[in-house]
Amino acid sequence: MARTIGVIGDRWTLLILRECFLRTRRFEGFQSALGITRHLLAERLKKLVRLGVLRRIPYQESPKRFEYILTQKGLDLYPVMMAIVHWGDTHMVDERGRPLLHEHQNCGKHFNPVMICSECGDPLHAKHVHVHPGPGARPPSEVKAKSAKAKARTRAA
Amino acid sequence: MARTIGVIGDRWTLLILRECFLRTRRFEGFQSALGITRHLLAERLKKLVRLGVLRRIPYQESPKRFEYILTQKGLDLYPVMMAIVHWGDTHMVDERGRPLLHEHQNCGKHFNPVMICSECGDPLHAKHVHVHPGPGARPPSEVKAKSAKAKARTRAA
Repeated sequence: MARTIGVIGDRWTLLILRECFLRTRRFEGFQSALGITRHLLAERLKKLVRLGVLRRIPYQESPKRFEYILTQKGLDLYPVMMAIVHWGDTHMVDERGRPLLHEHQNCGKHFNPVMICSECGDPLHAKHVHVHPGPGARPPSEVKAKSAKAKARTRAA
Repeated sequence: MARTIGVIGDRWTLLILRECFLRTRRFEGFQSALGITRHLLAERLKKLVRLGVLRRIPYQESPKRFEYILTQKGLDLYPVMMAIVHWGDTHMVDERGRPLLHEHQNCGKHFNPVMICSECGDPLHAKHVHVHPGPGARPPSEVKAKSAKAKARTRAA
């Protein structure tokens, strides 16, 4: 989770990714949609390319210009984006209603995203899920060491 | 989206919410799990209470101590958390595998979360979704004004 949050856990990165899913591809498109400085936008796009979430494709030779396209790793962030949008639609919209409606090509209807269990198909609720350490769980000693290191780091900062 | 990201779009807030879903409720519990400073933790918890995502319940009188519990608004963030965790499980784990396994009480199995359409039940893919302005869409003039304001703000900063 902490590593994933290192990828998506800042305001601008989430807004840039949202724009990607709305089919924005060019530097100027992101800039005018988001009102972000060129410096911050360039830095975030570079990071997303480095992490394999976006790839750069040239669309003009002189001066050289690129489009930014979601990779499969990036497209796989769609449930994260839809979950965020749906929570906002439920809890953050004003009296006018949703700013965007999502239409599903498969059935032609406006929809809400619903998260279900891959095994039984029931909608997921936090209260019905139990969490166990998996094969990649860190041993408690290592967790403590890391936590102590994090504390030392925040103290030093 | 921007308003929602104002709620959850920072690293510590997302990690605190993740701990809430892992049943952590007390200040010291969050602190030892996350290695966050008391100052930052207190500030983030206060914000989450103010936004109605957590509520504070006293569990000790002198000195006064509180537990932090997810409200319904907070519980509704579960799909966001699960989507983030699942993306990390797919793209960010090392060769040892997942740090945590999720077991569904309804079927007793370890599962992956799957996001489906509320109308037809098909799994959702970005390429099959079309987005239209909804009743709460801002008129283009207002979007421009806001974007210009945002630019002025970032220039001033």
